Amino acid sequence: MSVRHSEVRSGAYYDSVVLMQLQRGLAELPGVLDAGVVMGTAANRELLEESGLMTEEAAQASADDLVIVVQAQDDDAARAALGQVDSLLKRRRSAAAQSFQPRSLDGAVKQMPDARWVLISVPGRYAADVAREALTLQRHVFLYSDNVSLQEEVELKHTAREKGLLVMGPDCGTAIVNGVGLGFANRVRRGDVGLVAASGTGLQAITAHVHQLGGGISQAIGTGGRDLSDDVQGITTLQGLSLLDRDPETEVIVLVSKPPSADVAARLLSVAQGLSKPVVVYFMGQPVAVRQAGNLHFAFNLADAADLALVAGFPDITDLAPPGSDAPQVQPQGAYLRALFSGGTLAYELLLGLQNVLSPIYSNAPLRESQRLENALRSHGHTILDLGEDQFTQGRLHPMMDNELRIRRLRQEADDPETGLILLDVVLGEGAHPDPASELAPVIAEVVEQRQKPVGVLLVGTDEDPQDIEQQAARLEEAGATVYQELSLAVEEAVNLLASSSPVETGPPVSLEPFSEPLAAINVGLESFYNSLRGQGAEAVHVQWRPPAGGNEKMMALLAKLKAQQ
Amino acid sequence: MSVRHSEVRSGAYYDSVVLMQLQRGLAELPGVLDAGVVMGTAANRELLEESGLMTEEAAQASADDLVIVVQAQDDDAARAALGQVDSLLKRRRSAAAQSFQPRSLDGAVKQMPDARWVLISVPGRYAADVAREALTLQRHVFLYSDNVSLQEEVELKHTAREKGLLVMGPDCGTAIVNGVGLGFANRVRRGDVGLVAASGTGLQAITAHVHQLGGGISQAIGTGGRDLSDDVQGITTLQGLSLLDRDPETEVIVLVSKPPSADVAARLLSVAQGLSKPVVVYFMGQPVAVRQAGNLHFAFNLADAADLALVAGFPDITDLAPPGSDAPQVQPQGAYLRALFSGGTLAYELLLGLQNVLSPIYSNAPLRESQRLENALRSHGHTILDLGEDQFTQGRLHPMMDNELRIRRLRQEADDPETGLILLDVVLGEGAHPDPASELAPVIAEVVEQRQKPVGVLLVGTDEDPQDIEQQAARLEEAGATVYQELSLAVEEAVNLLASSSPVETGPPVSLEPFSEPLAAINVGLESFYNSLRGQGAEAVHVQWRPPAGGNEKMMALLAKLKAQQ
Repeated sequence: MSVRHSEVRSGAYYDSVVLMQLQRGLAELPGVLDAGVVMGTAANRELLEESGLMTEEAAQASADDLVIVVQAQDDDAARAALGQVDSLLKRRRSAAAQSFQPRSLDGAVKQMPDARWVLISVPGRYAADVAREALTLQRHVFLYSDNVSLQEEVELKHTAREKGLLVMGPDCGTAIVNGVGLGFANRVRRGDVGLVAASGTGLQAITAHVHQLGGGISQAIGTGGRDLSDDVQGITTLQGLSLLDRDPETEVIVLVSKPPSADVAARLLSVAQGLSKPVVVYFMGQPVAVRQAGNLHFAFNLADAADLALVAGFPDITDLAPPGSDAPQVQPQGAYLRALFSGGTLAYELLLGLQNVLSPIYSNAPLRESQRLENALRSHGHTILDLGEDQFTQGRLHPMMDNELRIRRLRQEADDPETGLILLDVVLGEGAHPDPASELAPVIAEVVEQRQKPVGVLLVGTDEDPQDIEQQAARLEEAGATVYQELSLAVEEAVNLLASSSPVETGPPVSLEPFSEPLAAINVGLESFYNSLRGQGAEAVHVQWRPPAGGNEKMMALLAKLKAQQ
Repeated sequence: MSVRHSEVRSGAYYDSVVLMQLQRGLAELPGVLDAGVVMGTAANRELLEESGLMTEEAAQASADDLVIVVQAQDDDAARAALGQVDSLLKRRRSAAAQSFQPRSLDGAVKQMPDARWVLISVPGRYAADVAREALTLQRHVFLYSDNVSLQEEVELKHTAREKGLLVMGPDCGTAIVNGVGLGFANRVRRGDVGLVAASGTGLQAITAHVHQLGGGISQAIGTGGRDLSDDVQGITTLQGLSLLDRDPETEVIVLVSKPPSADVAARLLSVAQGLSKPVVVYFMGQPVAVRQAGNLHFAFNLADAADLALVAGFPDITDLAPPGSDAPQVQPQGAYLRALFSGGTLAYELLLGLQNVLSPIYSNAPLRESQRLENALRSHGHTILDLGEDQFTQGRLHPMMDNELRIRRLRQEADDPETGLILLDVVLGEGAHPDPASELAPVIAEVVEQRQKPVGVLLVGTDEDPQDIEQQAARLEEAGATVYQELSLAVEEAVNLLASSSPVETGPPVSLEPFSEPLAAINVGLESFYNSLRGQGAEAVHVQWRPPAGGNEKMMALLAKLKAQQ
């Protein structure tokens, strides 16, 4: 037998540490079996219900109410426990106010003018106001709080960008600035790997792996999970990439995110391609069809991203090869790729490999509708054609047998001033044309010599194929084509010749100074983050923050109204 | 100056080789500048237009009409060329009929009763009928033709399955049976890698890579691109997997496809997990978050699939490790995974890694809506929970700081008879709980010892973290948990303990005999495929096929009507 008593207090603010400690304090009292102390949101009431701690009174609570439930052996014990609530709350408060602490951000800045960083972990509905104030005071913001609206995020980040400041977050769990972890962060060796991450434990897992593998971290910049959305457009990520590219301690950059918006991903990679350092990219949930494209290295999971970060700094053997038969003999004059493929799967994999690094890209066999080529007979932007598609094969031999359509199209693309590179596949073997090079090589020679368009050929076949692969390759190369036997090499050429990089800066660059001087920070919210900063040897000041009007919603509305009228 | 003349012939059938040769013949005549010979489909008329070969007459043609256009120096040359059409067509016909060839499939079977295979490459609208006849004659079908309806494909494959026969295709470009390439196929060494592919040039590229790497191919089975759709449900793929699993020559199986339906993918992998051999899986365009799960190896591109095929046969070093602290100390009694994670990204990557290998799988942070857990407070099937989601953190500390919710949930899952394995993440470092093991270990011990549920912990941290990672790991292990420092190892355990394999057979198994005896085949359609078979030393007979009623649609309809009335 047990009894359950509850109490609901409306309109008062308690931070989550206070709630946790009150709950633990109650649970330890004599005769108490279990206790629940939560703000009365719908989700929390469901959790109480699930824990067998619901009462009639608690069921009526609203989101702003503090709900206290005690399950005890008998009524006396329950009543006694609830009678202790105030003294338990008081004990907690006096423990916190041990030293002199400012009561406002403004006061904290006066107390520690060198602090360039403000850590904010107050409840979401107050967080944007605190962040706004920090930016006004010309401080970088680490915004741990969640439940900040998207609109507020966009507004804060625009303001920050204009001022050359960073807003990491909202909902940013982690960062490492000049060796000091902010929020949740693993202690790791200093080193030459810099991270920008729209993913908290993703950043932690990668930094921990890099450390375990013997590497180290220069800076790790969190952005919050929504930074790569269409609304935010990667503002913080772009600032971070610029910063790491300029940072002399950083040799390799790692960019990690849960699935970004397709547009933002393309934009980011275009910027990343323009950086002077190798960039390891892990876009979770996106297929990795090529491992490397120019300075970009694509990872397929967190551990792999850490592995790549440690090898990406070393130039690939293929990068060291002297320019020769492998380098295109002419320089492109147009900007766009035109791939005229006979193999549907090869065209598909080419599109998979290039869709994030060449933009805009279209195909008659697209991966998503926005990539669909309006008229398959006319190329547009970067175009990847599957000439084995039904449209091209009605009453006609497959292009692996009959080169006629491809030859016409080759000439058409060569005539297009927008064409910068033409890629073909040539698939040898049984059933295929007995000598494709004999028909394609003369046209390729014409395209390369007369129109000055580089041509690459992906040659699929074996030394046992009836066409003699060596001879086919030689003939195509003599005509001026670059011949590849692996798709990833063709991708590499396309990227090297055609990838256009976007400038990284979209506002005044964030100064490197706060990343190289000893960290000093102001903490508003969870005291444990302050303790962690001090424990790491950083200078820090904790603000004795209380919400305006003690968190009373009605009073807050009234204050806001008065302020607006001033 | 040039002139353009055209001629339209209605209602007659010509195969695509004839059309190509007529076009070439015309283009070589004196005074002819260009020629176009096509069936008058909308797509082909557009192509004529694009090539500058359109005439008023040709613009009026319909899909069943043969359109002949000649561009010449003058009217005389054009007229003369068109006057040659009939003799050019005749020349072609007499060249083809060199030897005695049967005029029907039935006749071919009588001529070569040992032929177990029928290759069909007639136009799509006739192809299903020919395939149906081949199945009735108890022959395997290689169906190169495209433009066969989905409904016909389903019907043909159901019929074939009941008879223990394969229908590779429609739109199947390639296969290798007992060393002989069907359709388009590269010549490769015999070896121990067997393929099942819903992708033509994908299969070719992988077999060619395997050959170039020194390996060889046992059998390569094409299925047609739609086999893994919801409609067809992978009938041919499943037959192929069963066949390769039973085939004594095959040591490693490669399964490759353009993106399959999610349901079919899950079904297939469940079957693949039950096979006795390693299976390399390349589902194009799907993210690869783990490289290995049980006997499955996931590839990220075609070349990688070939690489994996050659190493997948060798047991991994971790597979050789003796069971010890790494093996779970209790055997699961329930069937389902319950992952209670504090790190959103870690939960996300776990779901990415498991979504295709454990089914059904749900989450409060799903990758797609069909995975959404209806009520986050109650697990269902395999469940991956992100306890850092908003629902769980309103007015509450993050689960990386406060273990209370996780502990309650741990007990809840332990009480659920459906629970087979519980996975937790424990993230160490700054900001996180100072000693998570002290709170979690006692509950884990209770779950492992009293409820006999295995518990795995993904431990993220470094040797410099304030919590002392060694001690944390030791404490968790003493409590009975298996501790992993990499997510892929946790995935591996979940798969080993919980993955349920489905039986592979869905009809009488396809006999291995036709795959081990010298290939003999009947060819209906493109003569070049017959020539290729003979060139490879296979026995073959070519059918002098003509469509019913000479391809005249009205006559065909009349014949069908008469037949139905019989």
